[in-house]
Amino acid sequence: MSRFINVAAAQLGPIQRSDTRSEIIERLLAHLRQAHAMGCQLVVFPELALTTFFPRWYMEDPEEVDAFYEKEMPGPTTRVLFDTAAKLGIGFYLGYAELTVENGRAHRYNTSILVGQDGKIIGKYRKVHLPGHAEHEPWRAFQHLEKHYFEPGQSFDVWRAFGGVMGMALCNDRRWSETYRVMGLQGVEMIMLGYNTPVHNPPAPEHDDLSMFHNQLVMQAGAYQNGTWVVGVAKAGEEEGCEMIGGTCIIAPSGEIVAACSTKGDELAIARCDLDLCHSYKSTTFNFERHRRPEAYGLITSRRGAIAPADVEMSPA
Amino acid sequence: MSRFINVAAAQLGPIQRSDTRSEIIERLLAHLRQAHAMGCQLVVFPELALTTFFPRWYMEDPEEVDAFYEKEMPGPTTRVLFDTAAKLGIGFYLGYAELTVENGRAHRYNTSILVGQDGKIIGKYRKVHLPGHAEHEPWRAFQHLEKHYFEPGQSFDVWRAFGGVMGMALCNDRRWSETYRVMGLQGVEMIMLGYNTPVHNPPAPEHDDLSMFHNQLVMQAGAYQNGTWVVGVAKAGEEEGCEMIGGTCIIAPSGEIVAACSTKGDELAIARCDLDLCHSYKSTTFNFERHRRPEAYGLITSRRGAIAPADVEMSPA
Repeated sequence: MSRFINVAAAQLGPIQRSDTRSEIIERLLAHLRQAHAMGCQLVVFPELALTTFFPRWYMEDPEEVDAFYEKEMPGPTTRVLFDTAAKLGIGFYLGYAELTVENGRAHRYNTSILVGQDGKIIGKYRKVHLPGHAEHEPWRAFQHLEKHYFEPGQSFDVWRAFGGVMGMALCNDRRWSETYRVMGLQGVEMIMLGYNTPVHNPPAPEHDDLSMFHNQLVMQAGAYQNGTWVVGVAKAGEEEGCEMIGGTCIIAPSGEIVAACSTKGDELAIARCDLDLCHSYKSTTFNFERHRRPEAYGLITSRRGAIAPADVEMSPA
Repeated sequence: MSRFINVAAAQLGPIQRSDTRSEIIERLLAHLRQAHAMGCQLVVFPELALTTFFPRWYMEDPEEVDAFYEKEMPGPTTRVLFDTAAKLGIGFYLGYAELTVENGRAHRYNTSILVGQDGKIIGKYRKVHLPGHAEHEPWRAFQHLEKHYFEPGQSFDVWRAFGGVMGMALCNDRRWSETYRVMGLQGVEMIMLGYNTPVHNPPAPEHDDLSMFHNQLVMQAGAYQNGTWVVGVAKAGEEEGCEMIGGTCIIAPSGEIVAACSTKGDELAIARCDLDLCHSYKSTTFNFERHRRPEAYGLITSRRGAIAPADVEMSPA
């Protein structure tokens, strides 16, 4: 059997703070049109695809901060994306900063949505693993204030769409095996994942030259270990003086990279993805019902941080 | 800071059924002596290192089966390993089939032990993730009857030894992200892992050419995502007509392979491992206390098999 979905991983080059929303959306529309011209049914955009990666700045003026958030989706400037999607019959995944008011209180999330080929929202995901820090750390050339600007999401969900089981994640989520597994346990067949990853990580600069290796390693392992497609899409290049990795790629359930971008700018990587390729992994090596052993996994949900055994030699078994 | 431990990954070539225990142990002793001569403190042997990989055969005669199991450890033929370890001041990890009687009932496990530089057992691990099948499947050229010959172990533990926090796993355990995470949550700094992996997987032959890629992928991801060393050691080559992968390697907390075997025979791969290299991962990107979100991981322990959502389109979020 085959269940094909033609997917475009729509990498974006840098977005400068001076770029207007309309200019940015024009770049997204160009990706939608080109992907449609090449027979795609789904376009995956990066995380925070409508703005610069603003958590790199510490800002105190609420008005300055809120300008980076979408108060409605679609809103006046983003509606054209939905209209174009419906007209072309092409769906998309989009990352953006979400500001929502519930019971008179404002909530801010690092969010992605999945939009169907009819231009309607199918599902929304709010980022669970917020990296970085909550307080201003002036010693850093660039902040990573996601814990300051966003509340964490609470769950990894999946949706029946595009003929399969679709899941969403964002950026740092991809480094955590739990992200893939929680969706794998819901039968996910394609995980869409946008990211903004600086080349330089100030707390551990000794790993900087490995950032592309780590980027691929975690997504390839997550794909293989759950028998799912993974579409990882970067905002790349030098954004406001901060260099970000590219590495946009589409990964098969085998863990193999089957399409990839090679620049740090706006670029499409396209693959014809057969969702039925998931089956041979999910039904053999990764037949969870047959082989998983949750009775040995208790610490994964009962413990947050690592606790090493007391510093004494154990007695013989 | 540095906390060095010099480790030898002691790959074994095939062990034929006609080989005597004494002949096999002589090969292990040769590894111990050579590793000691090269300044190692720890030697890691494969899974089921004292016998052929007997779960490839369906056997009905209890006496024939039980000949593959160790009834005591050390026993008459294995004691020389412990005595030599103590004499040389070199520790080892050893995989073997364990037969133990509790309350008059026999239990069989796929087991590994960690032995200290004084020749005394520090800890024992019983394989949690038993792959393969429980019933005879005559259509296979080679069986994979681990679910038939062994009971599963119940936990992943760690031990303070060799100046660090040491963990053990066996073969199929390495494909499961939970294996590494449960030990990561106990601060593990080095996971020792022996394996026997056939090149050919009868239920999914379409993946056979990827077996070495998958072998490295899962161990490298497990190392990086938990900031731990991983020492993966194969029994390799053509054993009783069944071809097994090699790929023995030592992986740093960065996920990089720092030493590897290049043959399918008895071979040592050696690395000087600094356990303090774990720290920069465990304290930054993989600072679990700071970044993990167990409240979103519930399915990992509450659900064994995958359950996909009902086959209907979801309503908009």
